[in-house]
Amino acid sequence: MSDPQRVVVLAHEKFPDRAKTATGVLKYADYDVVAVLDRDNPGTSAADHRRDLPDVPIISAMSEAPETDALLVGIAPIGGGFDETWREDVRTALERGCDVIAGLHYFLEDDDEFAALAAEHGCEINDVRKPHDEIGVAQGTAADVAAEVVLTVGTDCSVGKMTATLELVEAARERGIDAGFIPTGQTGIMIAGWGNPVDRVVSDFTAGSVEEMILEKGDEHDVLFVEGQGSIVHPAYSAVTCGILHGSMADKLVLCHEATREVVHGYESFELPAISEYVSLYERLADPVHEADIVGGALNTSHVDDDDAAADAVESFADELGAPAVDPVRFDAADLIDEVF
Amino acid sequence: MSDPQRVVVLAHEKFPDRAKTATGVLKYADYDVVAVLDRDNPGTSAADHRRDLPDVPIISAMSEAPETDALLVGIAPIGGGFDETWREDVRTALERGCDVIAGLHYFLEDDDEFAALAAEHGCEINDVRKPHDEIGVAQGTAADVAAEVVLTVGTDCSVGKMTATLELVEAARERGIDAGFIPTGQTGIMIAGWGNPVDRVVSDFTAGSVEEMILEKGDEHDVLFVEGQGSIVHPAYSAVTCGILHGSMADKLVLCHEATREVVHGYESFELPAISEYVSLYERLADPVHEADIVGGALNTSHVDDDDAAADAVESFADELGAPAVDPVRFDAADLIDEVF
Repeated sequence: MSDPQRVVVLAHEKFPDRAKTATGVLKYADYDVVAVLDRDNPGTSAADHRRDLPDVPIISAMSEAPETDALLVGIAPIGGGFDETWREDVRTALERGCDVIAGLHYFLEDDDEFAALAAEHGCEINDVRKPHDEIGVAQGTAADVAAEVVLTVGTDCSVGKMTATLELVEAARERGIDAGFIPTGQTGIMIAGWGNPVDRVVSDFTAGSVEEMILEKGDEHDVLFVEGQGSIVHPAYSAVTCGILHGSMADKLVLCHEATREVVHGYESFELPAISEYVSLYERLADPVHEADIVGGALNTSHVDDDDAAADAVESFADELGAPAVDPVRFDAADLIDEVF
Repeated sequence: MSDPQRVVVLAHEKFPDRAKTATGVLKYADYDVVAVLDRDNPGTSAADHRRDLPDVPIISAMSEAPETDALLVGIAPIGGGFDETWREDVRTALERGCDVIAGLHYFLEDDDEFAALAAEHGCEINDVRKPHDEIGVAQGTAADVAAEVVLTVGTDCSVGKMTATLELVEAARERGIDAGFIPTGQTGIMIAGWGNPVDRVVSDFTAGSVEEMILEKGDEHDVLFVEGQGSIVHPAYSAVTCGILHGSMADKLVLCHEATREVVHGYESFELPAISEYVSLYERLADPVHEADIVGGALNTSHVDDDDAAADAVESFADELGAPAVDPVRFDAADLIDEVF
């Protein structure tokens, strides 16, 4: 995968609140983001829209962009298709000799016009959601690496596992720990600049696609933080969660939860079990493959209004968990790093 | 999928012991198997090789076959490739106007010669391991069907889940129960003549691919028996197991085990947990999505020499399980049906 220094992030009409990939890249990726494309907000800065985002100019179109190495598609419509209103920007990027990075279900490298332009101008099209062909069955060897493996697991989808993982990596690095990040979804892959889209591989290879990444990075770092997906009791996505749990052979688990979440997101007839039941299920399910303990929790309190109530929610979550907990965004992931390492 | 009456089953050089699909089709499928192709044993009968198989003639090549509607590839090399020594038989079948059914990773419909012959002679090539395009994310609705759903779950791979499922279906039907079979692997699909290859779908769609089948058949039968895959604590395949457990929303579980199995097949450094731990894990993992009880067990005693020792093993398995158990092949699945329904 190319590792561009400078990128322009496409986020038309959805920035910032419906542009999870764009904001994730702005906050956590090592790229130098030189501009955000959003035709709804030209002339403003990303920082004007959300105070945790950097001061990056927003422009209307790729034709106005400063010099850059790549265009990164930072939004996805429902279903992961390609929005034809983006075509002119992608075309312009390729004509300028820029690579294009996308995480859509629609693969840009299979688009005849884009493929021809990329060949003509010597650019790379990187569809990060396309699993590479060598991914196969797990061998049960992820625990052989030198690094300690920490996996974020969840009570549900969309509770903040990726964010918690990235905050833990940053906090660990600030404490001088040599920490690596193992991405498992398209946004994590775009942020990291590499990785397997675990939710898009053949089901038999779910664990194998995680194991491959652990083996690749496990001797380069002291600790690997693996981005979890879904939840072990999710009606639709538990297979991916289970494959990541066993494929990573994690030593430590961090349980991620969203304050006030009581039913499965998008599947509201399914109630979430008690936190203590999650602890027991994750640990007992991991055990026959590799013993793992839930060593801490990350609570997303973004829907809790004031900081006092949020702190109370974190404390009560830690009690249920029987382990230290933080909100790594509202408060500080460093507290958890200090307790866990 | 076509539903041919008469089939010829290809099983060159592997019949019967390394031809699980061929023997499964001979024992359980509704097809009229008119011949088996095995160039090592022409002139013999399937029944000569294993007493539980029907009296079907074995011939050397498709060119000698009696009239038939389809050729079914009943063996797979390691890796699921196409063995070029089979090409002449497949070519002959298509030239005779027969459909071809295969469960290989190598898709015969993508083979230029076979595709051209099929078009020329008006035949269908059915690669049962190719998932159809409409498979998607589960909606959590499998429990809405009228049928009771029974799922076989395992302590490991290759313990006899498919066989146990098919024996339970037969025994239930003999008791007058309107029972349906939900296949999840290539052999089950060939036997049933339809179905989704759950282990080959996109990992995010694992549960969805099972749910789709339950919804399709759930109002046609009183009981559905779902073929399980893998084991919930398998280092490589637990994702598929978990997806089937939650996607099927099973009401009842039958735990399948092989007598004397103590470590994971092919992953011998991993010990199997106690039977009681499997019972607890499967039931607690199922519960937040749909409550399911382990109501019985199926023990594969094929490696136990005498019937008395096998009966003892079944009894001791039932004790550990806290539920009735049988060996559905050596003894009779009907005993379990009587206890469970």
